[in-house]
Amino acid sequence: MNRIAARIEALRAKMREAGYAAYYIPTDDFHLSEYVGDHFKCRAYLSGFTGSAGVLIVTLRQAGLWVDGRYFIQGEEQLKGTPITLYKMGEEGVPTTLEFLKQNLTAGDVLGFDGRTVPTSFGKLCTESLGKLGVRLDPGRDLVDAVWEGRPPLSENPAWVLSDAYAGESVKEKLRRLREAMAEQGVKAHVLASLMDVAWLYNLRGSDVACTPVVLSYAVIEQEEACLFINEKKLDETVRAHLRENGITVLPYEAVYGFLSRYGGEKVLLSESDLNFALYAKLQEAGARIVNAPNPTALMKAVKNETELSNTREAHLKDAVTMVRFMKWLKENIGKAPLTELEAAKKLDAMRLAGEGCLDLSFTTICGYGPHGAIVHYSVTAESDIPLAPRGLLLVDSGGQYDGGTTDITRTFALGPLTEEEKRHFAITLKSMLALQNARFLYGTTGAALDMLARQPFWAEGLDFKHGTGHGVGYLLSVHEGPNSFRHNGKNSAVLEEGMVTTDEPGIYIAGSHGIRLENELVCRKGEKNGYGQFMYFEPLTFVPLDLDAVDAGLLSPEDKARLNAYHAAVYEALAPRLDEEERDWLKAYTRAV
Amino acid sequence: MNRIAARIEALRAKMREAGYAAYYIPTDDFHLSEYVGDHFKCRAYLSGFTGSAGVLIVTLRQAGLWVDGRYFIQGEEQLKGTPITLYKMGEEGVPTTLEFLKQNLTAGDVLGFDGRTVPTSFGKLCTESLGKLGVRLDPGRDLVDAVWEGRPPLSENPAWVLSDAYAGESVKEKLRRLREAMAEQGVKAHVLASLMDVAWLYNLRGSDVACTPVVLSYAVIEQEEACLFINEKKLDETVRAHLRENGITVLPYEAVYGFLSRYGGEKVLLSESDLNFALYAKLQEAGARIVNAPNPTALMKAVKNETELSNTREAHLKDAVTMVRFMKWLKENIGKAPLTELEAAKKLDAMRLAGEGCLDLSFTTICGYGPHGAIVHYSVTAESDIPLAPRGLLLVDSGGQYDGGTTDITRTFALGPLTEEEKRHFAITLKSMLALQNARFLYGTTGAALDMLARQPFWAEGLDFKHGTGHGVGYLLSVHEGPNSFRHNGKNSAVLEEGMVTTDEPGIYIAGSHGIRLENELVCRKGEKNGYGQFMYFEPLTFVPLDLDAVDAGLLSPEDKARLNAYHAAVYEALAPRLDEEERDWLKAYTRAV
Repeated sequence: MNRIAARIEALRAKMREAGYAAYYIPTDDFHLSEYVGDHFKCRAYLSGFTGSAGVLIVTLRQAGLWVDGRYFIQGEEQLKGTPITLYKMGEEGVPTTLEFLKQNLTAGDVLGFDGRTVPTSFGKLCTESLGKLGVRLDPGRDLVDAVWEGRPPLSENPAWVLSDAYAGESVKEKLRRLREAMAEQGVKAHVLASLMDVAWLYNLRGSDVACTPVVLSYAVIEQEEACLFINEKKLDETVRAHLRENGITVLPYEAVYGFLSRYGGEKVLLSESDLNFALYAKLQEAGARIVNAPNPTALMKAVKNETELSNTREAHLKDAVTMVRFMKWLKENIGKAPLTELEAAKKLDAMRLAGEGCLDLSFTTICGYGPHGAIVHYSVTAESDIPLAPRGLLLVDSGGQYDGGTTDITRTFALGPLTEEEKRHFAITLKSMLALQNARFLYGTTGAALDMLARQPFWAEGLDFKHGTGHGVGYLLSVHEGPNSFRHNGKNSAVLEEGMVTTDEPGIYIAGSHGIRLENELVCRKGEKNGYGQFMYFEPLTFVPLDLDAVDAGLLSPEDKARLNAYHAAVYEALAPRLDEEERDWLKAYTRAV
Repeated sequence: MNRIAARIEALRAKMREAGYAAYYIPTDDFHLSEYVGDHFKCRAYLSGFTGSAGVLIVTLRQAGLWVDGRYFIQGEEQLKGTPITLYKMGEEGVPTTLEFLKQNLTAGDVLGFDGRTVPTSFGKLCTESLGKLGVRLDPGRDLVDAVWEGRPPLSENPAWVLSDAYAGESVKEKLRRLREAMAEQGVKAHVLASLMDVAWLYNLRGSDVACTPVVLSYAVIEQEEACLFINEKKLDETVRAHLRENGITVLPYEAVYGFLSRYGGEKVLLSESDLNFALYAKLQEAGARIVNAPNPTALMKAVKNETELSNTREAHLKDAVTMVRFMKWLKENIGKAPLTELEAAKKLDAMRLAGEGCLDLSFTTICGYGPHGAIVHYSVTAESDIPLAPRGLLLVDSGGQYDGGTTDITRTFALGPLTEEEKRHFAITLKSMLALQNARFLYGTTGAALDMLARQPFWAEGLDFKHGTGHGVGYLLSVHEGPNSFRHNGKNSAVLEEGMVTTDEPGIYIAGSHGIRLENELVCRKGEKNGYGQFMYFEPLTFVPLDLDAVDAGLLSPEDKARLNAYHAAVYEALAPRLDEEERDWLKAYTRAV
């Protein structure tokens, strides 16, 4: 019996003891984070599958792993030789996890899971659909803990204070604004489980989660009290003093569950989509009156203040210096020395991490050459790695966490001669990105509406890309943040407010051939106000050349060229003082007017 | 005492007899039509105000007229010397009609109105808000009838059959599709009060309403029965035979109210926003279970079939010949003979009505010179008329009802030299109209999303226009039709379906100076279908030159020029065979490439 089979069997033994017919193991931590700490990688431990998303269900006879389209190939490879069946989500005839549970459980059966690791929506759905069949849910036990030998403990990494010089707004002021929003909703308390929101509200940062400098903690806020639920070992005297000064009561991390029982009969504000089911269940048990609405902090933190913006501008310039040096290195080395995707990605990561002010990457670098560029979430591994040749396109999507902000940038580089189709696709992507970056719009416009400007150059040619054109970006927080985005089918798309930072990243993906994506971050600013209303525009934060080796100027309109040249002039002006003479000369050539 | 004061006093006498504290007189007919027959012009008779929208409220001591921004000036002029106060809707401190009623009525008072002339929504709102104050509603009496001497009777104009060669779909097939939709909703009956929907469903037309060839009638449809409530005098033997063949039972016009009492306990489908309050109240009294949803016919009639489209194309070409002749006449006569707005409008109307196949105008021609062009709904009258000079811009928005469809076209003509600002604004409007006309988009896109393409050229210059960019157009029906439109704040904007006809009419309005609007009708068509989805595009229906005398080619991009030249080449090709040699030469020059 192999390693994975043994682990599944060990789990089944625990399931029998607990009386469970099935056990459900998702990918989330207790905070529904996009990235999770090592302690939470139960699904990876039990299945051997290391992708960033996927659900494992183990019954006494079967075991199945559900993955989305990004992970069909990786899933197949990593499950080889295990007793786990791969379920390719969205493929015809493949049951969803809920359908599978309905088909395989019958009246009297118990489905176990750790309620802290599933969203409230999932818990409610299961309770309802499986309840009808007479299946009982037990969300109270983490069975994996008992079978995971050498499980990494919960991170005890220290928290640190983001000083007002970086935060731009005191905790007192943030609490005042939050309490105002709570008063408007007439609630007694607000429960916050989103690590990004807790970090923003209390001006705290940490290193408990890869790529996102947050601290494992919960917050509960009332009008007169504010609590932080956290492992005290993470707090040094500076942090303690900061919390004291701001009137924040520190309580043990796990104490939040018991704490909520005090809210029987009281109105409690929470965002179900950002809350784990165990917390929700505790409030329900207590008889709290739940007000389900977006966390007020979500909009507050999306609108960056002038301090955050000024620091972010500086972070992006530091990041741009790294990107320019990487681009120069790539252009100078391609075709001269053997080089693979993985080597290029490692080189970039090392350069970025060595760069001024860089604390971490903001996500795993995507570095896809040729056909790999067409895989939207391609993650290069030793197994998938291919050599780079002096022709075609290399797509590189990467970013960093800086002491003054979070970056996210995609550039697609010509490694040598391009086909006519590659040039045409590059020109379309460039037109699209520049059209959105140069949008002017009346206040009240949503990202959903503006998305048309990015789509039209593709649609005019019978092309499209099947992802949103952009997402919000946090400030020294998650690289993916709401509520702002550019998505043409975004039903609840937010109005773009001054200070929101959103990526502008159209692309094109030709399976088996090539992929192109170009991405700048844009901050929304107020422009002219006149009789028609308040006009808004975007200020780019990203200042890195768009590879002129891939640009066929004959495919661009005079307006496109003017936009490209203006952007490149700004890139040169912003970066030249930060580069040495040789680099400056190189940059001059790569930002020349076309 | 003047004429209007005497009429108001006569109404008050009737109010005292009826025991009413207030009487409410809107502009609508029994079908909430945009235009109404002379019989329904109660508000105009009592107040002297002839605008197309406005509400009169008479209490025993006060009388007030509520008008929107279009009618502030006209309202002031027409109310001079009357005892009626003008309420400018939307101005600060001006109460709404409902606020006025709440302020002026107290417990025990009765508000009277003719429930057949107000929307269901208004009736429900009043019942609720005034009911709370103890005010009672009596929607059962038309008091104006008793005081209006010489009131025009209800129209008895004949109905006529739109043959299948024009309708493109039999009544049987339309009923089949409607009944399918009714079955899906599980309703016993469907009540239809919208004149356009009844006319479409039964392939009937008439001339009871100005500019809209509909027939005063209601319809009630069940699975096995279909009724038409109509004055029998309107039906000749041909129409009777058509109705018989299609299994339609004819009942008296007013009998619909009594008829509805049979639906106690039954589910009845209706669209509250298209139904008068008296019909709704009858169903409520009867205890019907009301299913409020859009009339299924609204979407069915918006999607034109191939017969309708082919006839509409022909109607637009006939209309274009008139427009070209008018434009040539205008260009040749301006500055040579004295000419006013009113004379130009009359000339165009006469030419259009004399044109091949034209049955009527589709709305009152808008013909505004200079500053009058900036008044969006300007209606030239003997009082407002001004002479045309050989300089500046003349905005002409007009259309016709043809035996094969309905047209709506706006052109803005240079009557001589233009200012730099006028040229710049013309170029922006032209870019905008052409950008939308040339849109390519994936199926599923709404008019709300596409509106961005028309707005962006304005917004880029800090300009805007405060009306929708386009509306649906009926087929030998109302020139304004839903559910399709181009409106960026259209929350329920419809997905654009193949066969929908929508206007594309951006504009700019500089108060006291000039107005520009350019309008083509576009039909939505299917284009390429590929792995990305079904692409859609617009086919223009309108083929009339965009005045090159107003075009400064230096302000257009190569793409704008290519679009303009392609459109003008198509205009010449489409119209040349229909013109004489002199006209053809003239058209050649006005469609030359720039």
